[in-house]
Amino acid sequence: MPLHRQISAYFISKISSGAWPPGMRLIPQRELCRQLGVNRSTVVTALGQLAALGLIEGSRGGGTRVAASSRAGASGPDAAARSTGAAGQLGGNWNDYVEEGIHYPNLPAVQAINRLEYEAGLIRLGTGEPAPGLLPGESMRQVLLELAQNPLPPLSYEEPLGSLILRRAVSQELSKNGIEADPSSILITSGALQGLQLIALGLLPRGSTVLLEKPSYLYSIHAFQSAGVKFSGLPMDKDGLLPDQLAAAAIRSKAAMLYTIPSFHNPTGILMDAGRRDALMDIAGGLGLPILEDGAYQDLWLDDRPPNPLKARDREGRVLHLGTLSKAASPGLRIGWIVGPEPVVRRLADIKMQTDYGASSLSQLAAARWLEGGYHEQHLVLLRGKLRQRRDFMLQLLDIHFAGLASWNIPAGGFYIWLSLNGTLSLRRLFKAALQAGVLLNTGDLYDRSDSRHLRLSFAYASEDEMDHGIAALANIINNQMT
Amino acid sequence: MPLHRQISAYFISKISSGAWPPGMRLIPQRELCRQLGVNRSTVVTALGQLAALGLIEGSRGGGTRVAASSRAGASGPDAAARSTGAAGQLGGNWNDYVEEGIHYPNLPAVQAINRLEYEAGLIRLGTGEPAPGLLPGESMRQVLLELAQNPLPPLSYEEPLGSLILRRAVSQELSKNGIEADPSSILITSGALQGLQLIALGLLPRGSTVLLEKPSYLYSIHAFQSAGVKFSGLPMDKDGLLPDQLAAAAIRSKAAMLYTIPSFHNPTGILMDAGRRDALMDIAGGLGLPILEDGAYQDLWLDDRPPNPLKARDREGRVLHLGTLSKAASPGLRIGWIVGPEPVVRRLADIKMQTDYGASSLSQLAAARWLEGGYHEQHLVLLRGKLRQRRDFMLQLLDIHFAGLASWNIPAGGFYIWLSLNGTLSLRRLFKAALQAGVLLNTGDLYDRSDSRHLRLSFAYASEDEMDHGIAALANIINNQMT
Repeated sequence: MPLHRQISAYFISKISSGAWPPGMRLIPQRELCRQLGVNRSTVVTALGQLAALGLIEGSRGGGTRVAASSRAGASGPDAAARSTGAAGQLGGNWNDYVEEGIHYPNLPAVQAINRLEYEAGLIRLGTGEPAPGLLPGESMRQVLLELAQNPLPPLSYEEPLGSLILRRAVSQELSKNGIEADPSSILITSGALQGLQLIALGLLPRGSTVLLEKPSYLYSIHAFQSAGVKFSGLPMDKDGLLPDQLAAAAIRSKAAMLYTIPSFHNPTGILMDAGRRDALMDIAGGLGLPILEDGAYQDLWLDDRPPNPLKARDREGRVLHLGTLSKAASPGLRIGWIVGPEPVVRRLADIKMQTDYGASSLSQLAAARWLEGGYHEQHLVLLRGKLRQRRDFMLQLLDIHFAGLASWNIPAGGFYIWLSLNGTLSLRRLFKAALQAGVLLNTGDLYDRSDSRHLRLSFAYASEDEMDHGIAALANIINNQMT
Repeated sequence: MPLHRQISAYFISKISSGAWPPGMRLIPQRELCRQLGVNRSTVVTALGQLAALGLIEGSRGGGTRVAASSRAGASGPDAAARSTGAAGQLGGNWNDYVEEGIHYPNLPAVQAINRLEYEAGLIRLGTGEPAPGLLPGESMRQVLLELAQNPLPPLSYEEPLGSLILRRAVSQELSKNGIEADPSSILITSGALQGLQLIALGLLPRGSTVLLEKPSYLYSIHAFQSAGVKFSGLPMDKDGLLPDQLAAAAIRSKAAMLYTIPSFHNPTGILMDAGRRDALMDIAGGLGLPILEDGAYQDLWLDDRPPNPLKARDREGRVLHLGTLSKAASPGLRIGWIVGPEPVVRRLADIKMQTDYGASSLSQLAAARWLEGGYHEQHLVLLRGKLRQRRDFMLQLLDIHFAGLASWNIPAGGFYIWLSLNGTLSLRRLFKAALQAGVLLNTGDLYDRSDSRHLRLSFAYASEDEMDHGIAALANIINNQMT
């Protein structure tokens, strides 16, 4: 069968099965050519055949859609009922609903990144996860073998707070950072991201204001905004949040809580020093301001051990502390935790039960073995060494390619270097040009909507070869675009 | 140390660490005695010591709370700032927020059930999951061994739609029920419950109306109500939903969608026949009414194979179909799926990425091996045999103990017998009396708020001995309570 016929047959099967419903916008011709690896004329021929069959049509906003009348019967009495909106005032099928719903979509750039991360061959200079080679494949196989030897594999549901075995192991782990928490103060979540989602849905009333560092990772996700919560950003210096500014902003905005990443902040890599941590706790205590502490990067120090988390300084139940195995051991396990006062974690556990009935038991038991067996401790030592090497390598590359173009911090831990360009440019245009050159970026506007001169670089994901090539290509593009 | 001193020391450690924050309500004395296995006077002595220390105090609504001034410094200037609500107009710490948040709490009875299910020794006559002995421990160990032999264990994130290997396996599985769906039309979720949550958040605008069978499982969870969606219940007969009533109700309520469990309905066990399924699809087509089909029990037929799902009859993208591994293979894997038009599953995948960044990779790969390796197919055959035996046993017990007290259906599949009492009683009182006798119940009001004469019995969880004892005890209590 000629190529264009194969393409039109594929389209026909999608449309006739309802997988591509009436009104669905088709991907642009250029993108189609790229994905199918065929030339434009082949695609044009195929689309012409489909249009002749009345299956697709030009859409008002430009582009091509599946024809509204593509379904048999759609022009009969059914269609009349539909257009008068007899029952479905919202339309005829699920496709009409994709713009509805109370949860915001991801930012278009985040959607693009989520999709593009699964395309082979791109150099991912901003990805906030450890490269597959940094993950502990061999010792996790050992953990799976141990689980397989268990006479009863973990196939049933776990308790609302999560597996007691895992909570005990997490409690043990937290004590190494000075946090004393019984298993009854710990809720296991499907990654720290779910922790944020549960807090947004379960603890904050609509219209509340959350204080946070600006820029912040939290701007790049929609958990809080979808729950009707507003953000108010606070400035930082090289030692973290400015406590004086915090007090003024909290009073002015009647803030409901402070979200902070004190250790190796995402995206700036900033480490809050011990004095700031104490000052912050004092001020929050005086104001009666609850704190949500994101400890995702706490254990990924590269130079010196960071000061203990805010939660270790808390005797009032003021701090909810988030932790995760995603950044060090395995993103795919989807295991995180929330530590806080018992009534609060019970409320969040109740919502979690309604949301997904608990995290995977298999993941929970694997995580428990991982922590209990001492694998985590061992792996952290190795990982820190490898991350240190990657950081230093990326810093060298920046010295070579970005001197005079930008400035940057030297992060003492975590994954990120926050690149400040010496001039402004269109970050959207930069993203596109980099993608064209095979480089996937996390631009600063993801973390602060008004930003036009920062990039979050990650030394955790790309290989040294890729960094070498990618940073050079990036400098080249920026040189051309920056005014 | 005497017992009462141990108890007061434990309370002091909880209060001083902030795990029990100021204002937290303590569990009632009677419950405390039960949990600690001590007598009332010991508890009274301990609480007296704590009150003398100013750490606890009587609360307005009765009962005892952690004292508002239990924290050092709380009576100083901080407390003043707090009570004038300088910043936190909502109060001083996270504990003040447990009544806030937009997500509804579970029904009190559901919260109690979720908690009590982890107490040993209770006979669970209503639990909607397979007994541990019905789960495929041996073959799942085989699956774990296979995963452990994989040179690269699944430690990274999967694609937004979920692992392609698993989606291919699910696509294959769906084809056995007449559903043709490419992997691109399938979204992997953390159990079918998360599928409901994503649809509620992602597709339905606030104020929409959802039609559903009455009673329905969906009344017992709050995914839709928390998203501001209203319910309108439809009557059933022994063959399922009444299509004529559907049309009238859809027009009257301007319904946004229909939620239905056509095969072995939860909680009634009703199987919708093929004629009804066709009629329902016709009517929904005429009305332009989208359908959400919950197929959780589809494969758990005990007598004859049921008619194909609604999704198998759909060529318009009208039906979203939910499936799960929780009811047959493993609740703890937390693996389910949504099948629907591509733009719809992409929208839901985007919200899933924001919610928990995907289901556990370990669970996804285990599920893929489970399906691909033919384990699932084999296990279903065994499971059906065991469930059939359990169903028949429970029906015998009902004949013995409930003749004259109630009537019931003979379910052709699934887990449930819907017991209709011959008179009414207080279901709340029944729940308590049964609990006192060691029997945990799922009462009809969970599935229809106005119900006062039904119980959902499950033959999937309790052992034959437990059923024997539990059903007799239940009949006895009902005999005493029913008017």
